[in-house]
Amino acid sequence: MEFPPRVPWRSGGFCPFCSGNEDRTPPEVYAIREEGEANSPGWQVRVVPNKFPALIIEGELERRGDGIYDVIEGIGAHEVIIDSPEHNLGLADIAPSQLEAVISAYQQRLLDLEKDSRFRYILIFKNHGAAAGATLEHTHSQLIATPIIPKRVIEELEGVRAHHALKERCIYCDIVNQELRDKLRLIEENESFVAIAPFASRCPFETWILPKQLSGHFAHISERERGELAKLLGDVLRKLKIALDDPAYNFVIHTTPINDDQEWLFHWHLEIMPKLSKVAGFEWGSGFYINPTPPEAAAAYLRDLEARHGSFTD
Amino acid sequence: MEFPPRVPWRSGGFCPFCSGNEDRTPPEVYAIREEGEANSPGWQVRVVPNKFPALIIEGELERRGDGIYDVIEGIGAHEVIIDSPEHNLGLADIAPSQLEAVISAYQQRLLDLEKDSRFRYILIFKNHGAAAGATLEHTHSQLIATPIIPKRVIEELEGVRAHHALKERCIYCDIVNQELRDKLRLIEENESFVAIAPFASRCPFETWILPKQLSGHFAHISERERGELAKLLGDVLRKLKIALDDPAYNFVIHTTPINDDQEWLFHWHLEIMPKLSKVAGFEWGSGFYINPTPPEAAAAYLRDLEARHGSFTD
Repeated sequence: MEFPPRVPWRSGGFCPFCSGNEDRTPPEVYAIREEGEANSPGWQVRVVPNKFPALIIEGELERRGDGIYDVIEGIGAHEVIIDSPEHNLGLADIAPSQLEAVISAYQQRLLDLEKDSRFRYILIFKNHGAAAGATLEHTHSQLIATPIIPKRVIEELEGVRAHHALKERCIYCDIVNQELRDKLRLIEENESFVAIAPFASRCPFETWILPKQLSGHFAHISERERGELAKLLGDVLRKLKIALDDPAYNFVIHTTPINDDQEWLFHWHLEIMPKLSKVAGFEWGSGFYINPTPPEAAAAYLRDLEARHGSFTD
Repeated sequence: MEFPPRVPWRSGGFCPFCSGNEDRTPPEVYAIREEGEANSPGWQVRVVPNKFPALIIEGELERRGDGIYDVIEGIGAHEVIIDSPEHNLGLADIAPSQLEAVISAYQQRLLDLEKDSRFRYILIFKNHGAAAGATLEHTHSQLIATPIIPKRVIEELEGVRAHHALKERCIYCDIVNQELRDKLRLIEENESFVAIAPFASRCPFETWILPKQLSGHFAHISERERGELAKLLGDVLRKLKIALDDPAYNFVIHTTPINDDQEWLFHWHLEIMPKLSKVAGFEWGSGFYINPTPPEAAAAYLRDLEARHGSFTD
């Protein structure tokens, strides 16, 4: 996958994602607007193709060999979800209704793109801050649709399958139940969702948000659940921002594969990885992560923040 | 695994790894010396326990459950190999004989530690530069012995096994043969080793060094092979230093598990990952890597360096 290096747009300079500069991005593929026509101001959330895509939408899926290696064309979709028309507001700062609109845009793009039978997976993620790989300051999320199921997702699916074969239960349901019972790694919960510091976290303050009830497909959450998710995600991002002084972070939505002939059991969830530590030789060589902050300590710290700083909810 | 944050020792300040400061590290467990007693100057390479170890050597291996989770005590060894008594020389700068001594120290520590039957794997790696996770400037490598085979190693071993089941050949031998034949991704070779930019490299200028002949255990290389490896590794590190302006990098030696009741087929090799790109949301979520520099272009660039800059060998 080859693409030109991206030019970072820096503080004070020109920003193609700000309202009014709609002609400086590729034409929008989706928007939630209060007013205005396509590619003009008045939008709340705007989705555009990535100007420097990792994968391109045109072409036929073709697999071929190169000696012992396998090659597949870089077919896919790479879109940018501009989370807000305002340059200086991050997901931790925007109103719950705005975050709901962002989540709704994720859902709509997923539901639209999965109609393309070439795609097997749609990965929605966010890079916040330069240390997390963001090259544009203006808050945005990304979506990459791939013609194969990613390695990391396969590992999770096989883990779910192995646990189910043994226990006839979903492992993520077991995690949710144990964390709600023990409360050691519980950060926050509401009726439909729970936020936890996962057992054996890979990095300090790693945080997962999971639906309490088994549900494989992120885009199938209801309107009520979307509201609850926006509230919980906003709370967690505000807590991390205060606790860690606006850390760089990545988050990724893990959802079920699409257009696949296998029946996968999955439990969608969202994983947030603050970028406080570096992936170094040990991590590359082992696939293990040295984490100086136990998740139990991270969760306790985030739980106590509310007592120290007042309510995080509106 | 919990350990206190490390204090970086910065340019110009005190350095515990410099010759003369031997009393400021834990006592050495191994050294190659031209003169002097243990823990005094006169050493060429010095190995000491890590002052802030990720794993500790004392204790019994105990596995227990915590609900659905598994816990194992953090038993292991974490050592620092001080590559040179001189502060300002990196592995790209030191003489071939010094690099041979470093490799010899890796071998000796591996052969010594594998006598401890609690260990299943010994990972030797190097973090060069702050972006690669190094917290001390003075050139050093590290070794972590673990009581379980790391996830990443298991994946490689299973890949080797699957290929062998299908082809009755070693996949790394197949890689070596194809790269020597095609020469597209070949960087340099000598009698016993080859340096390549691996097919579908994870990052720009990723480089692997492999023995041409099947050999599973890194520590079992002969004296002649050690000399050839030092020459090739030194050449490659000098090329990367010139081509990429002294990049931060990690390297990791992938060798066979130890004290394991399974008979593994493996082909040891060394993987170098320059730190020019960031692991971001897509990589975390997919396990795939977006790499803007094709390995074919990286290899051609490194091959041509010699023509432009003169010989890299002494």
